Amino acid sequence: MQIDTEKVRRFCETLFQAYGFSAQESKTISDVLLRADLYGIDSHGIHRLVRYHEEITSGQVDVKAKTEIVHETAISACVEANKAMGQLVGVEAMKLAVKKAHNAGCGMVTVRNSNHYGIAGYYTELAAEEDLLGVCMTNTEAICVPTFGSQAMTGTNAIALAMPADPFVFSYDAATTVVPRGKLEVYKKNGQPLPDLWALDINGKPCTDAAAVIDNIINKAGGGIAPLGGIGVLHGGHKGYGLSIIVDLFSAVISGGLTSNHVNRKPDHTGICHYFMAIDYGIFGDKTSIKAGMSKFLQELRDSKKAEGHSRIYTHGEKEAQLMEQRIKGQIPVNEKTYEEMKKIAGMLNVEFSL
Amino acid sequence: MQIDTEKVRRFCETLFQAYGFSAQESKTISDVLLRADLYGIDSHGIHRLVRYHEEITSGQVDVKAKTEIVHETAISACVEANKAMGQLVGVEAMKLAVKKAHNAGCGMVTVRNSNHYGIAGYYTELAAEEDLLGVCMTNTEAICVPTFGSQAMTGTNAIALAMPADPFVFSYDAATTVVPRGKLEVYKKNGQPLPDLWALDINGKPCTDAAAVIDNIINKAGGGIAPLGGIGVLHGGHKGYGLSIIVDLFSAVISGGLTSNHVNRKPDHTGICHYFMAIDYGIFGDKTSIKAGMSKFLQELRDSKKAEGHSRIYTHGEKEAQLMEQRIKGQIPVNEKTYEEMKKIAGMLNVEFSL
Repeated sequence: MQIDTEKVRRFCETLFQAYGFSAQESKTISDVLLRADLYGIDSHGIHRLVRYHEEITSGQVDVKAKTEIVHETAISACVEANKAMGQLVGVEAMKLAVKKAHNAGCGMVTVRNSNHYGIAGYYTELAAEEDLLGVCMTNTEAICVPTFGSQAMTGTNAIALAMPADPFVFSYDAATTVVPRGKLEVYKKNGQPLPDLWALDINGKPCTDAAAVIDNIINKAGGGIAPLGGIGVLHGGHKGYGLSIIVDLFSAVISGGLTSNHVNRKPDHTGICHYFMAIDYGIFGDKTSIKAGMSKFLQELRDSKKAEGHSRIYTHGEKEAQLMEQRIKGQIPVNEKTYEEMKKIAGMLNVEFSL
Repeated sequence: MQIDTEKVRRFCETLFQAYGFSAQESKTISDVLLRADLYGIDSHGIHRLVRYHEEITSGQVDVKAKTEIVHETAISACVEANKAMGQLVGVEAMKLAVKKAHNAGCGMVTVRNSNHYGIAGYYTELAAEEDLLGVCMTNTEAICVPTFGSQAMTGTNAIALAMPADPFVFSYDAATTVVPRGKLEVYKKNGQPLPDLWALDINGKPCTDAAAVIDNIINKAGGGIAPLGGIGVLHGGHKGYGLSIIVDLFSAVISGGLTSNHVNRKPDHTGICHYFMAIDYGIFGDKTSIKAGMSKFLQELRDSKKAEGHSRIYTHGEKEAQLMEQRIKGQIPVNEKTYEEMKKIAGMLNVEFSL
């Protein structure tokens, strides 16, 4: 079903206030959440409301938490998030990185003990709106199996980067796993076998049974998803494995937080870690020329020769920007299960539900 | 055949002096070149001597060139390399980034109009030797086809990162293509069909004929190699495509140099661009703890459960460090074709050849 975007936004804002967040905080959380739906990244949008509900009510998220800067220089900070809501932590930390970039050319902020923060691209685009280059990474609960391993040790560990360009900001936002868990859920629902390269059973063998892989992930029985490049080294799986380590390095290791393999091991503490960087690309030369150079390169990519059967080459962030333009004034798709969950949560919190 | 490492080193140093490089410059170039052989990355070592010979004699490399800093701040620089030898540019630029990191916490150096510089990992490890986190990227001539495209637009565009750790530095160094061109050469030589996901014909269709793909690359007829993740989007090829754009952004776009699709279009000018970053990770907290945290995480990865049929999980840089320990005091493998090329080049330059 399709629901009016503004109605969903108002519902979310009211709901988060009911949990105890301030009006401004609720606005921020809802904006991050709905941005995913506006971009067509349905797995990270309103669909996740039930998960945030569980995290807030279980105490993994501390509604009243205040973050603290535990180490700081002109270009850097290490933030202890004290279990605050990931979206609030993310916006605050990227804003700190942006401020440092405006003052000192670059800002790098590493964060420990946060929570899920939605789409990484939201934060890098905050930097791009300030005419800065933004980078963002986050670890998550381990789901990705190292090359030659059989046990999940790193998370989906997304890397995001946004760079100003015309007519679309270049906005890259991707997990370092071959696919996110949500893709496995789709195959399970459709009863389709998984592609060979995607997932491993508890013995580290390729496994095409989506339901079995998901069960093993939930029960922490072993196995999981392959890194970008797939199982083994033939298609470069060791590269994706290395990228997932890099994400844990910037987010968890340098913040002194929990690496993916230790995340979400307690009922009241996820320990998720993030990294944010903003660079004033004017520290390398004339900003107008550099931005024009990026726009030109992206246009050359889009204009390059298409493969047979394809009429369009995309650059990252283009599809999302176009979809948002349409959905922001209209409606977003909400599946029935999510609709029922929203209704149930609204009931538990005595929030009016009239979507 | 196996040749004494020190003999090869002395030969290279004499050879580069014969081209007109100083004794110190020849030492540096040879050290970068041979590091690849010591690490077992044979494609980037002495095997490439003939390629450097061509680049120097064709004027793509200017032996007497001096680099210039065209823009600079406390934490950044943009370097015009003026067609200098890539290895010399690389060492100089990373040393500049290192100096800035020691003084200001971070140093970022972007470089235009350079040349091939060998393995990116050499430069990141220079930073790691200074107890800094090092990052390095380089573009190359276009060989990688965008998702849904049929024309190579980005290079192998390697990303390297080194972070101090015990007992091995974490040293990631990987192309953003699914495989480097050298892998296709091996399949061609063995008459084997390529895996489906690796390469595309001139119409952008999957092509398993290694010889045809290589011919098309050489003749710039179209097609090429897929990004990390392979052809299409099923296995995340769009992610590798995005990473290759990111490499061009940091190396070529912000330096005002040539993006991969414009590299190597003139007989006397490659226009290759690089990016170097060094971060004093002490700007985030206590260095001893952070380094210990990295060592612990890497050990946990190596100690995690192995897949059936595998007895070891590696972390990046471990295999290379171990191989170097053995080869540096002994010999490196040189194939017969390379040996003949070395002999021939020595003859042309009147350099004694007694390997």
